[in-house]
Amino acid sequence: MALSKSIAIVGATGVVGQTLLKVLAERNFPLREVSLLASGRSAGKQYQFQGEQLTVREARAEAFAGVDIAFFCASGEVARALAPAAVAHGAVVIDNSSAFRLDDDVPLIVPEINAAAISGHRGIIANPNCSTIIMAVALKPLYDAVGLKRVVVSTYQAVSGAGIEAVEELKEQVLAFTEGRSVAAKILPTAAAKKHYQVAFNVIPQVDLFADHGYTKEEWKMVHETQKIFGNETIAITVTTVRVPVMWCHSLSINVETHRPLSVPQARELLGRSPGVVLLDDVDNQVYPMPIDFPDRDDVFVGRLRQDFSLPNAFNLWAVGNQLRKGAASNAVQIAEILK
Amino acid sequence: MALSKSIAIVGATGVVGQTLLKVLAERNFPLREVSLLASGRSAGKQYQFQGEQLTVREARAEAFAGVDIAFFCASGEVARALAPAAVAHGAVVIDNSSAFRLDDDVPLIVPEINAAAISGHRGIIANPNCSTIIMAVALKPLYDAVGLKRVVVSTYQAVSGAGIEAVEELKEQVLAFTEGRSVAAKILPTAAAKKHYQVAFNVIPQVDLFADHGYTKEEWKMVHETQKIFGNETIAITVTTVRVPVMWCHSLSINVETHRPLSVPQARELLGRSPGVVLLDDVDNQVYPMPIDFPDRDDVFVGRLRQDFSLPNAFNLWAVGNQLRKGAASNAVQIAEILK
Repeated sequence: MALSKSIAIVGATGVVGQTLLKVLAERNFPLREVSLLASGRSAGKQYQFQGEQLTVREARAEAFAGVDIAFFCASGEVARALAPAAVAHGAVVIDNSSAFRLDDDVPLIVPEINAAAISGHRGIIANPNCSTIIMAVALKPLYDAVGLKRVVVSTYQAVSGAGIEAVEELKEQVLAFTEGRSVAAKILPTAAAKKHYQVAFNVIPQVDLFADHGYTKEEWKMVHETQKIFGNETIAITVTTVRVPVMWCHSLSINVETHRPLSVPQARELLGRSPGVVLLDDVDNQVYPMPIDFPDRDDVFVGRLRQDFSLPNAFNLWAVGNQLRKGAASNAVQIAEILK
Repeated sequence: MALSKSIAIVGATGVVGQTLLKVLAERNFPLREVSLLASGRSAGKQYQFQGEQLTVREARAEAFAGVDIAFFCASGEVARALAPAAVAHGAVVIDNSSAFRLDDDVPLIVPEINAAAISGHRGIIANPNCSTIIMAVALKPLYDAVGLKRVVVSTYQAVSGAGIEAVEELKEQVLAFTEGRSVAAKILPTAAAKKHYQVAFNVIPQVDLFADHGYTKEEWKMVHETQKIFGNETIAITVTTVRVPVMWCHSLSINVETHRPLSVPQARELLGRSPGVVLLDDVDNQVYPMPIDFPDRDDVFVGRLRQDFSLPNAFNLWAVGNQLRKGAASNAVQIAEILK
C-alpha cells in the first residue's frame, strides 16, 4: 500500500465515526483522501476536517473504489452488507461491529496484545467490543506473567456506548429532573430493546439485548472475544454488564485468579510498565481512576489493585477506559497504523 | 418490657433517623413515647409524628431515663459515647453504626437470618452495614440449601448512604451541569475523606475511608459482618464497593460459588419463597430490579440469576435493596419487633 492512505469511514456521522476523525487528526495519520460515508438520510451533511470541507455520501458498494482502508463504525447489518464490497474493491476493512469478530478468518486485534495476528487477515480485521478491549489491555501483563485462570467482572458502562442518542437522553432526563418534569426513556438500555428505562439516577443491569442462558450479548462478547484475543479458550470468564449514568468511559471491577503466584508489588510493577496501561493507584492519597477524568485519553487506567484474600493467587482491580477511544476509534486507528 | 414502648432515636434529624420514624409509623410499632435526640445544634428542631409535635433534644446520658429501646442512627463515636449510658438506664440499644458490630457480646442481626442470636444480647444489638444486609438476605436461601464457598461482589451504591448532604450534593452537581456552571464536590466519597470528587456523571470506587491492604472499611464490613451474621467464618468473600450517581437503593453484582450443586430453576424457586426476597427475573421481558424503582420498599429484589459457566456450582445474580430501609431503619425496627 501507499504510505499515505485513502480512507473511508462508514458511519461517519455517529459518535464512533466522529471520534475516529478526531483520533486520525491527533495521531497525524498519513491521509491522502477521506471519504465520509453514512446512511442515505445523512448524505449531504458536511464536516470540517484538517481545513477541508468533507461531504457525507451514501455508503454504497461503489464508494469504496480506490479506498485503502475502510473503517466501519456502523451496525453489524451494515458491516455484513458492505464490508465484502469494500474488500472486493481492494480496501482493508477495520470493522467496529460484532459482525465478523468471532469468524475464524478474521483477526480480532488489540495491538498491545496480538498485533502479529493481523498478518492472517483476508481483507477484514475486527475491532473488539469496547469493554473487552479495556479489560484485555488491563489483564495482558498478568496474563503474560502468571496466566489467567478465571476472571469475574462487573461493568459500569457509559451511556455513550449506546450512541449519541443515549447521551442526549441522559442529558434530557437530568434536565427534566431539575425542572420537575417527568422523565422519558426511549433509547436505553438499547434502542433495539422492547422496553426502555430511565438511566438518570439509576443503573440498568442490561447492556445490549439478551442472548443465551440469561446473559446479554455484551456479556458473551466479553467472554468469547477476550479468549480469542489472547488465543486461549481456557481462560474462564464470567461477566455482568451494567449501564450507569456516566457520559464517557467504561469502568470495570475485575476479580482475577491467576495460574501462578504473583505479589501485589510485582503485579503493580508489571502493570506500571505495560503499553497502553497507566497505573493510578495510591489509596492513601485517594488516587484511583474515575470515568469523569478521561474524556480524551487512549490509555486504560488501572487502580485499586489489591490481593483477594478469599482465594490463593487472586487479585481485585479497577480499570477505566474511554470506550469511544481505546474501546473503539483509537484501537481501530492503531490497527491501521500497523497496516502501513 | 411493656407491650407499648418508650423509644428514643439518637440522630433523629439524619436521613436514617427520619426514615426510622416513617417505618415505625408504617409498621404500627406500638409506641408509648418517642424521644428525638441529636447533637446540640439540632436541639429545638420540631417534627410532626402521628399527630404530635416532637421537639429534638440534645442526646445526653440522662435523656435515656425511662427509655425501653434506643435506636442509634448516628456515628460510631456517638454510639461509643452514649450507648453504655442508654444501657445503664435500662434501654436496649439497637445501633446502626459500626461501633459494636464485631464485638463478641453484641449480636449482629438480620431477622430473616439470625433472629435467634438476639437472645444473647447484653444491652446492645447491632444493625449490620447496609450493603451487607442486602447481600445477606439475597444469599440466605442459597446458604441454607447448598452452602456458600466463595462470594465475589461489586457494589453500585446510592449517594444517600453517605447522608442527606450527599443527596443534596448530587442534586446540586446535576443542577450546576444543566446550568453550565462548574461542579463543586465537598462530601463524596465521604465527608471524612481528605479529597472530594464529583459523583454526577461519574462513579467513585471508594465507599467510606480506606483501611488495611488497600480495601475500604465498607469492603471489610461486607466480609466480616456477613461471616458473623451467618455464623460461619469459612465463607470466603471479596468485595469492591463503588458509589454511583443514584439517590436511593444499593445494587450488588454478586458472583457466588456454592459448596454443592443447585440448578438455576432450583435456585430461582428457593429465592422466590425466601422471606424478605422478591424475585424479579424475566429477561425475556426485560424484568430485573433497578434502584430507581424502590424508593419505599423493604424487600431485597433479586434478578439476573444465571449459571456461571466459568466454574462448577456457581451463579451470578443482581440484588437491589433500599439501604435506608432494609439496609438500616427497617431492619432496626424488625429487630425491635422481635424484642416485644
